[in-house]
Amino acid sequence: MADTFEPRPEHHFTFGLWTVGNPGIDPFGVAVREPLDPVETVHRLADLGAYGVSFHDDDLVPAGSSPTEREAIVKRFRAALDATGMKVPMATTNLFRHPVFKEGAFTANDPAVRRYALAKTLDAIDLGVELGAEVYVMWGGREGVEVDAAKDPRAALDRYAEAVNACCAYVRERGYRLRFALEPKPNEPRGDIFLPTVGHALGFIERLEWPDMVGVNPEFAHETMSGLSFHLGVAQALWAGKLFHIDLNAQRPGKFDQDFRFGSEGIRDAFYLVKLLEESGYTGMRHFDAHPYRTEDASGVWDFARGCMRTYLILADKARRFAADPEIAEALAAASAAGIHEETVPGGATSGAAVSALRDRVRAEAADPAWLHALATRGYGMERLDQLVNELLLGVR
Amino acid sequence: MADTFEPRPEHHFTFGLWTVGNPGIDPFGVAVREPLDPVETVHRLADLGAYGVSFHDDDLVPAGSSPTEREAIVKRFRAALDATGMKVPMATTNLFRHPVFKEGAFTANDPAVRRYALAKTLDAIDLGVELGAEVYVMWGGREGVEVDAAKDPRAALDRYAEAVNACCAYVRERGYRLRFALEPKPNEPRGDIFLPTVGHALGFIERLEWPDMVGVNPEFAHETMSGLSFHLGVAQALWAGKLFHIDLNAQRPGKFDQDFRFGSEGIRDAFYLVKLLEESGYTGMRHFDAHPYRTEDASGVWDFARGCMRTYLILADKARRFAADPEIAEALAAASAAGIHEETVPGGATSGAAVSALRDRVRAEAADPAWLHALATRGYGMERLDQLVNELLLGVR
Amino acid sequence: MADTFEPRPEHHFTFGLWTVGNPGIDPFGVAVREPLDPVETVHRLADLGAYGVSFHDDDLVPAGSSPTEREAIVKRFRAALDATGMKVPMATTNLFRHPVFKEGAFTANDPAVRRYALAKTLDAIDLGVELGAEVYVMWGGREGVEVDAAKDPRAALDRYAEAVNACCAYVRERGYRLRFALEPKPNEPRGDIFLPTVGHALGFIERLEWPDMVGVNPEFAHETMSGLSFHLGVAQALWAGKLFHIDLNAQRPGKFDQDFRFGSEGIRDAFYLVKLLEESGYTGMRHFDAHPYRTEDASGVWDFARGCMRTYLILADKARRFAADPEIAEALAAASAAGIHEETVPGGATSGAAVSALRDRVRAEAADPAWLHALATRGYGMERLDQLVNELLLGVR
Amino acid sequence: MADTFEPRPEHHFTFGLWTVGNPGIDPFGVAVREPLDPVETVHRLADLGAYGVSFHDDDLVPAGSSPTEREAIVKRFRAALDATGMKVPMATTNLFRHPVFKEGAFTANDPAVRRYALAKTLDAIDLGVELGAEVYVMWGGREGVEVDAAKDPRAALDRYAEAVNACCAYVRERGYRLRFALEPKPNEPRGDIFLPTVGHALGFIERLEWPDMVGVNPEFAHETMSGLSFHLGVAQALWAGKLFHIDLNAQRPGKFDQDFRFGSEGIRDAFYLVKLLEESGYTGMRHFDAHPYRTEDASGVWDFARGCMRTYLILADKARRFAADPEIAEALAAASAAGIHEETVPGGATSGAAVSALRDRVRAEAADPAWLHALATRGYGMERLDQLVNELLLGVR
Repeated sequence: MADTFEPRPEHHFTFGLWTVGNPGIDPFGVAVREPLDPVETVHRLADLGAYGVSFHDDDLVPAGSSPTEREAIVKRFRAALDATGMKVPMATTNLFRHPVFKEGAFTANDPAVRRYALAKTLDAIDLGVELGAEVYVMWGGREGVEVDAAKDPRAALDRYAEAVNACCAYVRERGYRLRFALEPKPNEPRGDIFLPTVGHALGFIERLEWPDMVGVNPEFAHETMSGLSFHLGVAQALWAGKLFHIDLNAQRPGKFDQDFRFGSEGIRDAFYLVKLLEESGYTGMRHFDAHPYRTEDASGVWDFARGCMRTYLILADKARRFAADPEIAEALAAASAAGIHEETVPGGATSGAAVSALRDRVRAEAADPAWLHALATRGYGMERLDQLVNELLLGVR
Repeated sequence: MADTFEPRPEHHFTFGLWTVGNPGIDPFGVAVREPLDPVETVHRLADLGAYGVSFHDDDLVPAGSSPTEREAIVKRFRAALDATGMKVPMATTNLFRHPVFKEGAFTANDPAVRRYALAKTLDAIDLGVELGAEVYVMWGGREGVEVDAAKDPRAALDRYAEAVNACCAYVRERGYRLRFALEPKPNEPRGDIFLPTVGHALGFIERLEWPDMVGVNPEFAHETMSGLSFHLGVAQALWAGKLFHIDLNAQRPGKFDQDFRFGSEGIRDAFYLVKLLEESGYTGMRHFDAHPYRTEDASGVWDFARGCMRTYLILADKARRFAADPEIAEALAAASAAGIHEETVPGGATSGAAVSALRDRVRAEAADPAWLHALATRGYGMERLDQLVNELLLGVR
Repeated sequence: MADTFEPRPEHHFTFGLWTVGNPGIDPFGVAVREPLDPVETVHRLADLGAYGVSFHDDDLVPAGSSPTEREAIVKRFRAALDATGMKVPMATTNLFRHPVFKEGAFTANDPAVRRYALAKTLDAIDLGVELGAEVYVMWGGREGVEVDAAKDPRAALDRYAEAVNACCAYVRERGYRLRFALEPKPNEPRGDIFLPTVGHALGFIERLEWPDMVGVNPEFAHETMSGLSFHLGVAQALWAGKLFHIDLNAQRPGKFDQDFRFGSEGIRDAFYLVKLLEESGYTGMRHFDAHPYRTEDASGVWDFARGCMRTYLILADKARRFAADPEIAEALAAASAAGIHEETVPGGATSGAAVSALRDRVRAEAADPAWLHALATRGYGMERLDQLVNELLLGVR
Repeated sequence: MADTFEPRPEHHFTFGLWTVGNPGIDPFGVAVREPLDPVETVHRLADLGAYGVSFHDDDLVPAGSSPTEREAIVKRFRAALDATGMKVPMATTNLFRHPVFKEGAFTANDPAVRRYALAKTLDAIDLGVELGAEVYVMWGGREGVEVDAAKDPRAALDRYAEAVNACCAYVRERGYRLRFALEPKPNEPRGDIFLPTVGHALGFIERLEWPDMVGVNPEFAHETMSGLSFHLGVAQALWAGKLFHIDLNAQRPGKFDQDFRFGSEGIRDAFYLVKLLEESGYTGMRHFDAHPYRTEDASGVWDFARGCMRTYLILADKARRFAADPEIAEALAAASAAGIHEETVPGGATSGAAVSALRDRVRAEAADPAWLHALATRGYGMERLDQLVNELLLGVR
């Protein structure tokens, strides 16, 4: 079979420096791999066909670097970008590693911690913008509680909003061309985390000062941990015009945050997601926020990166086949799939008169018991449709 | 010990007719109890100290009743309300029982189903308003998918919004004093349900035509099924000004929808929830959407109802003791709990200048390594605080 | 692509009468399909290439049938079997539908209920044996609790064991050639069910009077509800010599019991399971205990049945390709996969002397730090291997 | 209220050195607390009323210590034990921290790793026995897979059994008075872990060479992660005579391994567990395998330890009140709770004749429809009983 799944920059695949660079520390074990030099990462990913990289401030410029050191690091890193044509479409802040953030960052009880977190973020925004980032991700990994008594959750949301507003105000003042993307997660490392799902983030955004500057960065693993459908969550983000960025990886529901190679778990969910991204006109990055298994040495790291991208391309190809498959088209028709695009209220649901008129019409129809019986007993052929999709995925049609 | 946990109407406890009336059907078993007459329910609940009842259209007026039958039923029911002083603060529609809704109601692929669902809802709104309802709950139990291929989720959200808009338009045209409350649920009976969490509903509402008319009706069991914190979800709803109603019951995470007696599982979550409701100034109903165990006969049903209310009152009393406990106050101070109410950015987070000034100040402070070290090494005394709460809950302080 | 995935009797596919016959009742909705005549089921499944059917006593002979009615039903059913060549390899008892079992069956608190459950089971064993069953499944769906206070769990296990022992004693006395298979489930319809996983059943069996007569009937959905690996659970059952039967379907972790079409969720788990069954020499039935979506009419029911079998055959074909793929073989070698078959203790782990000698040898080797360093830094190439499997599953290799 | 919840040595409370000594590393953050000197730990815990401590080999004697260093450490540690009267009832091996174990220990694919793991365990057994341990725990945290293709699970169980057998052979040869306790866990740090639940371990043990030497060490968090009832799992272990040790902590279902302070989550489960331990005659340790929140400094660590023990004692007191409460006794009678202790088959379930005779008797009784109707419609009063327990737990009765 001819293999056409070769990643190229126009596919807009990006990786966090921390993903391939993950040394394999977990709650029960120490590092199994040496740190990666960000410059090497840029070159290796460029060779594999990626479009760019992203980073937390500390991934690139270690905490405590002097201004001179920072300058040297940035210069060297930029040279790697220039040499390879790689981009930095997104940047973010590490507000979770240092013990100072153990009780929270933007929502810490201690105002000094919150202020430090905000100042660190502003510095990191500068760094990201300097390297070309147009999206700034905020993952509030420490924004949460184990002990509900200790933090008023409504005040915590006030503080969270205040921090996001402050970053927006700063970006506006500086004239940066930067949008923010909130990354939800339900738990881990905190017992419960604020803004646990895409939905909670979408609701939160609408209460901000400049909601248009803020969208979401849904992560496959994070929604899936809660057993929610990632595909449907991303669809709602797109529906709301808020899909600014996305984190691709793999996860089993109800388990620790696994961040496995994209497609290695939940292949059907991954397929519907890729189909949605490809068909929705989403123009953002296909960003992998995953890490190699702890069993891997350095060469496994690059197998991991290659696998993430290949699986995406394979699934995108399946999505095209889905659209072109006449038997699937027939099954979709049997399921009345096109009907969902038809207005329910002819004349418009915001007109009370049109709504009342529709009711009258339905009453007349439903007066004939056969009408309702026919609607109730019709089949939708979903078993056949689903099996067709399964066989498409399995490559036997 | 003097028992002061006697429910009274001013506590605003309400029950769905379908809760005490649940006959005990489950996926593997048939009914174990006889249907309850709604009039008996009103009298029994009034005797127990409840404030009112709620219903689905079909709970009160069986589907297919003639106008004359409907009138007789309503008259008899209203007489029971009048005799007891019981209220109907909320009503809702059954859009899930009849086979016509097997593929969805407001988001069914077939436009005829959607129109029927809408017409049924308008009739049910009339019934609810006629009996005094001021909140109308929408639980979209059939709005979802097992086969993602069969339904465009963004179009489904369009249709969902259209239906809610249509109901709002109708209510406005009629001049009803009625607000809507969307009830999220992640799954069951569908594989995945649209608007799976409080957050998703909050985000959705903001894209409606009249967002002020629509809030949420969070349910303990539904959020907990996904392992999310119900307490934090309700807090976000309150923060957004959207807690229009609430459904109280009990549930274990990661299991089927259990709808157990309030407080029978997750007592700590229940405590924090009651504390939040009592302290937030929430003036709505304390509505129980639960059902008795299938092991119960008729007398167990009323034990169940009594238990729901008693547990709420016991926990409300604990919340008052929490607020008055000097050792807890001391532990809260050690955890800097009051600090969450302090503005992070003096002068206002929406001012770029104030934000930049704050960063300068933090940079100066953080230049001294001892400053950060002190912040990083301080303790918050959360173990002590949490243990105090535990002992308060266990009644040993 | 030539389609070689046609089910035939030698594949040993069987279906419960209750699976294709499921009318679509769920906790929120009534039946959507008419009951199926068991005789029609036998004919339809035979046409599709199945090997046989299974049943609960009540599926075939409705409760309350007179001896004459029973005889007529059995005769007519047997005629359908004879006409089609279909077999009844397994039978079971319905100990969950009738209200008498609401508090349990073999572990009900009330001894009269337990005795009734046992008598019903003995009758059902007679019926199963009469129709040729060689495996008798026991699913204890009502054996559990919501209220832990109400039942001593150790005594409940005594009663459970007593019931299984009694059935074995009966079978031995009658000289039936019948083995029992316990089917674990963690919860639903009870809050918690005894013997919640394959493991708990395996442990329980060893405390029975005739452990050799009793094995397990693992179900994909039931293990997966708890987030456990079905593949690993079945492997342990095989390892213990206890895989007497198996129930195939599909399920998302942490959700209600879904019983979807085999392979429609968790396709990777399904693949490893099929690979294990095919490679282990398992000679039992491939039994589908699933049901069609509620969206289906009668024609969808048979699409469902066909899909279950086709997916199994597709995956069995993938397993053969896996075994024959040279690049996968190479990756397995890189992962030292064959090493797991080598004895750890040369000379035998049950010899204290051999064990001590091994320690001496390891101490000598580990005295050289390079030895441990080499072991610690080697890679296993799991990312590459897993990606190869993924691409095999997706049909692109 | 007089406080009688003071821990004393006769309560048999023990803590792992690694529990209070946990420095607060998590997947997203570095250490927040300094390491604790084991000698200090012994003294502090003795002051708090504990009975003893447990350890992994490396907790006490850092890897790479010379024999002389080991001797000095042991001598100093023993002096602390002697000075305080503290015991070491249990010891275990760290087979998860070092990178050499990244692909497994007893079930690693590479035989050299397995042999190293076994040798390390034998050394650790010597250390444990030297300090008085009578129970040796085996937690196979790295025994599992992310990539199912890479490891034959049946062979892995062979290797697992071989390792346990080897340890038993060694202990027998040395004449140690030591029993083994397997500690199950479903996942984390591996994607799936072998022997994921108490049940799987119980089944596994029966296939070992010396099953009497091996029992289980169930952990509250580990069973609860899978949503299983810890109380029922421990009950089955007791029923099988296999509860050799127990790990107490707290956990929310479906989340990462939280290891919170005992009783801080799931208080009802904790109550039933304590009731079971106290009433079953279990004479082993009440061992806490938990760690303080990451928000805590050194003083929070000791609050944590104190809280674990106090909550146990509070719940033990509740269990005594439960047994003495006349209203609870009445509710238990209404639920026929004593009936579970009655034999189902008079004359013995292992007699085919007695079983058949029972069936005849039931048939006769069931011939009267009123008999079955009465059994089916009786209530069990579980709502009342459960509410009584809830109010007992909440301290209002």
